Amino acid sequence: MATYEELQRMPMSDLRAEFRSGRYIGHTAAMGAGLLQANLAILPEADAIDFFRFCQRNPKPCPLVGVSDTGDPLMRTLGDIDIRTDVPSYNVYRDGELTEQVPDLKDLWRDDLVAFALGCSFTFERALAEAGLPLRHVEQNKIVSMYKTSIPLVPAGKFGGGTVCSMRPFSPENAERAARISRQFPQAHGAPLHIGDPAKIGVSDIDKPDWGDVTEFRSNEIPVFWACGVTPQNALLRARPTLCITHTPGSMLITDVPEDAEVTVLAPAA
Amino acid sequence: MATYEELQRMPMSDLRAEFRSGRYIGHTAAMGAGLLQANLAILPEADAIDFFRFCQRNPKPCPLVGVSDTGDPLMRTLGDIDIRTDVPSYNVYRDGELTEQVPDLKDLWRDDLVAFALGCSFTFERALAEAGLPLRHVEQNKIVSMYKTSIPLVPAGKFGGGTVCSMRPFSPENAERAARISRQFPQAHGAPLHIGDPAKIGVSDIDKPDWGDVTEFRSNEIPVFWACGVTPQNALLRARPTLCITHTPGSMLITDVPEDAEVTVLAPAA
Repeated sequence: MATYEELQRMPMSDLRAEFRSGRYIGHTAAMGAGLLQANLAILPEADAIDFFRFCQRNPKPCPLVGVSDTGDPLMRTLGDIDIRTDVPSYNVYRDGELTEQVPDLKDLWRDDLVAFALGCSFTFERALAEAGLPLRHVEQNKIVSMYKTSIPLVPAGKFGGGTVCSMRPFSPENAERAARISRQFPQAHGAPLHIGDPAKIGVSDIDKPDWGDVTEFRSNEIPVFWACGVTPQNALLRARPTLCITHTPGSMLITDVPEDAEVTVLAPAA
Repeated sequence: MATYEELQRMPMSDLRAEFRSGRYIGHTAAMGAGLLQANLAILPEADAIDFFRFCQRNPKPCPLVGVSDTGDPLMRTLGDIDIRTDVPSYNVYRDGELTEQVPDLKDLWRDDLVAFALGCSFTFERALAEAGLPLRHVEQNKIVSMYKTSIPLVPAGKFGGGTVCSMRPFSPENAERAARISRQFPQAHGAPLHIGDPAKIGVSDIDKPDWGDVTEFRSNEIPVFWACGVTPQNALLRARPTLCITHTPGSMLITDVPEDAEVTVLAPAA
């Protein structure tokens, strides 16, 4: 059994073999350096076109980076990916209720399922860190603060609800830099949705996040809110599809797509 | 009847009233300054999810900027748009053959139709012009040269084929600037697919475009190839859906979305 530190340093092919075999079922933070990580949502085709529209209409919380053919577990545009096995751990929801947590989907995959991969914040967080912008929750080994907000989503069919934001504290100057850098990653939530005043987006108490840990603010720091991948998770639960399979939070799909790629599609062989 | 020059200067609400009434059925170049223009493809829902996947997988030739609900002619995320009337002229294809050219879809709209809006090159061309990069075909009042290329598309269901590129000549320095500027417009084909050698992308004679006019090259100029909106048009014809409705070439959908917006979706009222 590889240690977490060994997994962090593994080349992607070895790392994927660990996931594929079921030997590792934990989180994927800081693994697969330079590669795009993604949230996963698998739905029956009957719900797929509305969820597709929901993502197209809400590209900041739901940046689509790949969609499988109906019934095909291979997500070829994202690399050598078998979506039945290549995520460390999966959550299975039936009628909106979590019923199982499983290490693979070998027994659950069906001919009518469509898999959606959505970009996640790891991508822009890595870019911020490389630009020398400190991430408090990373420094303190905490989970980023996340909040329900009043920022409306554009509905599509049964999918809708409110936008969930993650929040990171920065000095005003660093907030501007962080906004400029993250805008370059539309596949990973893009620019912040709001900077400065939590009340303006319906957050009444910054010290009471709806998910994650409380964030420590230092003098002169202001909150910077980004659209968060919990948004589509919430929209899925709220819609209560007969079956919905997601990654287990933190345990993401690591793709073969470079995270600074202009488009999140690997070109086919010419 | 407004003149072309009057139409170019009209505010969008008046301009759309001209289109909506059927009084103007011509092209939309240089109209609706600062607003995103789009290619249009309307398909029965049975073909829609595969076309949706086709666009997701080929974002440079097919940058999706809006998708209607099934049967709903109002494209709310793009503004005050009734897709049955708000494009100056429509082409109707049945089983892959052009059968009609009509000024509205009042008699053709059906409950199972889905409308897709795809970004177009007008957006990045305006940005290039504003940056002082001369566009030969605009200066000479010609149609840009377009070529079938060997750059493969990622197929989805019955949709596939090859990438069509438009080509604009620049000095090597201006080519690099044009690449940098256009990369900022993922909703409008993004960065060039190729710069320099037509043979590398399967174009054997630069003086024989497959569509549009021949381009005059001046000393020291090299060809710069961008993915082109003719690509999805071709893929649609090739797939031969029972019904497909597009804009008439040059006669685009002008949206209410600013063409420099980070996302091509107008926020709903909070």
